[in-house]
Amino acid sequence: MPLAEFSLIEKYFSTLGPARSDVLLAVGDDAAQVVLPPNMTLVAAIDTMVAGVHFPENTSAVDVGYKLLAVNLSDIAAMGAEPTWFTLALTLPHSDEAWLAGFASGMSDLAQRHQVQLVGGDTTKGPMVLSLQAQGLVPEAECLRRSGAMSGDNIYLTGFIGDAALGLRVALQGAAYPDRGYLLNRLNRPIPRVEIGVALRGVASSAIDISDGLLADLGHICRQSGVAAQLDLNQLPLSAAYRSASVGIDVALSGGDDYELCFTAGVAHHQHIQQLAQQYNCPINCIGKMVEGEGIHCFLDNQPYQAEKRGYQHFSG
Amino acid sequence: MPLAEFSLIEKYFSTLGPARSDVLLAVGDDAAQVVLPPNMTLVAAIDTMVAGVHFPENTSAVDVGYKLLAVNLSDIAAMGAEPTWFTLALTLPHSDEAWLAGFASGMSDLAQRHQVQLVGGDTTKGPMVLSLQAQGLVPEAECLRRSGAMSGDNIYLTGFIGDAALGLRVALQGAAYPDRGYLLNRLNRPIPRVEIGVALRGVASSAIDISDGLLADLGHICRQSGVAAQLDLNQLPLSAAYRSASVGIDVALSGGDDYELCFTAGVAHHQHIQQLAQQYNCPINCIGKMVEGEGIHCFLDNQPYQAEKRGYQHFSG
Repeated sequence: MPLAEFSLIEKYFSTLGPARSDVLLAVGDDAAQVVLPPNMTLVAAIDTMVAGVHFPENTSAVDVGYKLLAVNLSDIAAMGAEPTWFTLALTLPHSDEAWLAGFASGMSDLAQRHQVQLVGGDTTKGPMVLSLQAQGLVPEAECLRRSGAMSGDNIYLTGFIGDAALGLRVALQGAAYPDRGYLLNRLNRPIPRVEIGVALRGVASSAIDISDGLLADLGHICRQSGVAAQLDLNQLPLSAAYRSASVGIDVALSGGDDYELCFTAGVAHHQHIQQLAQQYNCPINCIGKMVEGEGIHCFLDNQPYQAEKRGYQHFSG
Repeated sequence: MPLAEFSLIEKYFSTLGPARSDVLLAVGDDAAQVVLPPNMTLVAAIDTMVAGVHFPENTSAVDVGYKLLAVNLSDIAAMGAEPTWFTLALTLPHSDEAWLAGFASGMSDLAQRHQVQLVGGDTTKGPMVLSLQAQGLVPEAECLRRSGAMSGDNIYLTGFIGDAALGLRVALQGAAYPDRGYLLNRLNRPIPRVEIGVALRGVASSAIDISDGLLADLGHICRQSGVAAQLDLNQLPLSAAYRSASVGIDVALSGGDDYELCFTAGVAHHQHIQQLAQQYNCPINCIGKMVEGEGIHCFLDNQPYQAEKRGYQHFSG
């Protein structure tokens, strides 16, 4: 039975996530109202997912809800900020209660885990387009920007890359890789590296999350920092599932959707970063170093390596 | 010629609005970073416009860009907050440079007028769906909520209502009203009552902006405040264009998209409110009063009046 907009919003979205003590007004007024702590700056990111473009149409509602929040928390993590609140803009073709219940439940689990609260939203009728705007807090000087990398810094990567791109091939083309379940899970349930992002305050000189592929995203750090990157592809962190798919290395270099953090840090921090990897039970591998110049220079078995393509660009014709 | 996503965003959206001194990072990192002033709370609203649902497909890009920001500034105004920053999520079927240039220009004019800066965004490919999230600042105790109306308060309305609904009939059905240009302008270029919203701090007991129609939106104030409204329809502010269209009064009661402020205030503030109307050169009419009970009770020529329908609801089947 179709529900009127107000009932629908109330039923699934009035209490999503924890009830934070700094939220004065959440869903239900013209705007949300939140208390701001002293000595912090606000960060804000917005990311959209379009059915059929950013996720296969047959993705479960639970996974879609989870992922929409996860990709935005990943942006907040890449700033070294602690995520706090988010707003939601849902455009949906019809009010499918089962879909909404699943979507809200996938999102709610992740919101609880990171103590972020849904504070406002808008639900409209149209083709399925889902936008989420996430906010977070970070001390001004400790914000991790793309522009802070320096020649001589090490380049690090959390987790494994390339898995999500293979997961997409499984989802769309039924690719017959071993460990299909693992790869699909990596596509649909990316882990935003929130705790590691916060722990990198004062440690990382720059950071970005890998949404468009390592080469495309590290390229932003290079350009915005005015330095070049030298990558040792033998150090690229590839999962057992990725290796057993035998697809070569280019998918890992250019595939998007992994939402791991790529960051740079002075060599003096190397041991501390290894401790963080243990503390947060997440691999953090050094994959190269920043050097003078521009662009990304890849080496495989100590030989220059030319990667095949560079990330996915919307509207690139 | 299609542009790659990054060039497209940079060209039209990297500098939209004024360069505020409290913006540390705008478009171009994983998230925006802004400085927070002391003794203020943050308000945040998000509103989506879908082509063919929230505006006729043939609306000019300039008007679409203007209106997307205007409707969100209207939400911020309804909280008594000063708008500061916004983020943008654009889903577009293709990269039409002329459309983007128009859209950005319409939005930029309004952003400049209210000194709000675009600080981040996401551009994705898909059916046209446009979301904007606006933020603003207001002292905690002076925020205008929907829940503060009290029995005995007067009910006020800025500007005129019903014009936008008639404008929509002109746009969609070519309705042959006199003053078609005025009505279309009221539909496409709503004026967010930003200065009046801020001026109502400490004056209004509750406020909402009229997006879904007076009865629907005033109904929110009634429910959330636990009081009823008694409307004198003879006092309803109708423009000369509305009157000359001879459509009766129901369109003005239920038509959406006017983005005027409806607010309540104690009778002691009546004279001050009239001064605000003069100061901001905008009619502010008293259209009734809050009373004990629930619901909205309309009177025309001192007789009870039953309005025809109550606002537009998405998904209402």
